[in-house]
Amino acid sequence: MSLIEHLNWRYATKSYDPTKKVSEENVTKIVEAARLAPTSSGLQQFRILVITNQELKEKIVPLAWGQEIVADCSHLLVFAAWDNYTEERIDTVYDRTTDERGLPRGRFSSYTDKIKGMYLPQEAHTNFIHTARQSYIGFGLAIAQAAELKVDATPMEGFDNDALDALLDLRSHGLRSVTMLPLGYRKEDTDWLVNMKKVRIPSTEFVIELK
Amino acid sequence: MSLIEHLNWRYATKSYDPTKKVSEENVTKIVEAARLAPTSSGLQQFRILVITNQELKEKIVPLAWGQEIVADCSHLLVFAAWDNYTEERIDTVYDRTTDERGLPRGRFSSYTDKIKGMYLPQEAHTNFIHTARQSYIGFGLAIAQAAELKVDATPMEGFDNDALDALLDLRSHGLRSVTMLPLGYRKEDTDWLVNMKKVRIPSTEFVIELK
Repeated sequence: MSLIEHLNWRYATKSYDPTKKVSEENVTKIVEAARLAPTSSGLQQFRILVITNQELKEKIVPLAWGQEIVADCSHLLVFAAWDNYTEERIDTVYDRTTDERGLPRGRFSSYTDKIKGMYLPQEAHTNFIHTARQSYIGFGLAIAQAAELKVDATPMEGFDNDALDALLDLRSHGLRSVTMLPLGYRKEDTDWLVNMKKVRIPSTEFVIELK
Repeated sequence: MSLIEHLNWRYATKSYDPTKKVSEENVTKIVEAARLAPTSSGLQQFRILVITNQELKEKIVPLAWGQEIVADCSHLLVFAAWDNYTEERIDTVYDRTTDERGLPRGRFSSYTDKIKGMYLPQEAHTNFIHTARQSYIGFGLAIAQAAELKVDATPMEGFDNDALDALLDLRSHGLRSVTMLPLGYRKEDTDWLVNMKKVRIPSTEFVIELK
């Protein structure tokens, strides 16, 4: 099956069967797709939390408008982005890159100096707008990978980010939550969306051609 | 081949062979993957411009730090997000959704009232932060689809958004540019990145497990 067929298969699952678990092998592939995502300057400005602790999942339900899928899913992924750019974070990434490529450290210093000059004077909240954007690329790829594996998933933004950050102690790791992605297997008899048609804007309106 | 294999194959192409063109069939699949992207509340808050006009591509080079890939690529995709939320835009999407599902218009009005109450009082620039995020999901899926088709692509943020918006008259369409994605076929002898190792943060650092 092709990516387009996988994307047509998937939908935002509204009810999970809590007895069905996603295999660790499949979860590993889903986070791997996100790990391989391209990001601005290759900085990989986000991380993924994989939550299987049932008590913790249940604590997150009230932070997510009471949505029970957060508790009933098999694995709850939380995508969390850097709360800011720092010189150390940028250098750590580029030191790894040069080391793994067998290049001298500092090989890309004219480039890293440029991006430091751009980001470091900016406010943390401005930089977070940028780091959060990158996490959505990985978010999309994780959704696609789940679909390829016929694992159900629900892209979610509707939750109290600050409360989740506090619950998971994300700020002390220099991270802020952006999105969540419950993974599992649908419970068809209680899922109002499962049999509804997928609706998208027609291609003729979605695409603007400039020939 | 699996998605992970495709993602390992791809890289941010730094030089395109201007004589090699991507087929219309493949370009259609690449934008289709983005059209199928999930978005917040299903609003599909972004559009894709497909630019093949050579004169126009060359005018964009100086707006993109002089990067010649913008002119040498086969097709230049520009991802542009809604500049704001409006009642009409939200209603148009939900009227289409209910019509296509054979449901009465207004079936989701308690939900659309909620999102209107959230977005409409906010400043345009705050809402654009949100619409732009959605475009990155489609951006990621278009990158994955290009890789599946063995079409080279270069995810780009480095350009003068305001100048591009003016050149393409995007604001009059209620859109603002977010990212660009040149598509084409690599020119290996002038691409410094093609033979370099792909480097990513180790999984053990990328993933935080809460069991």
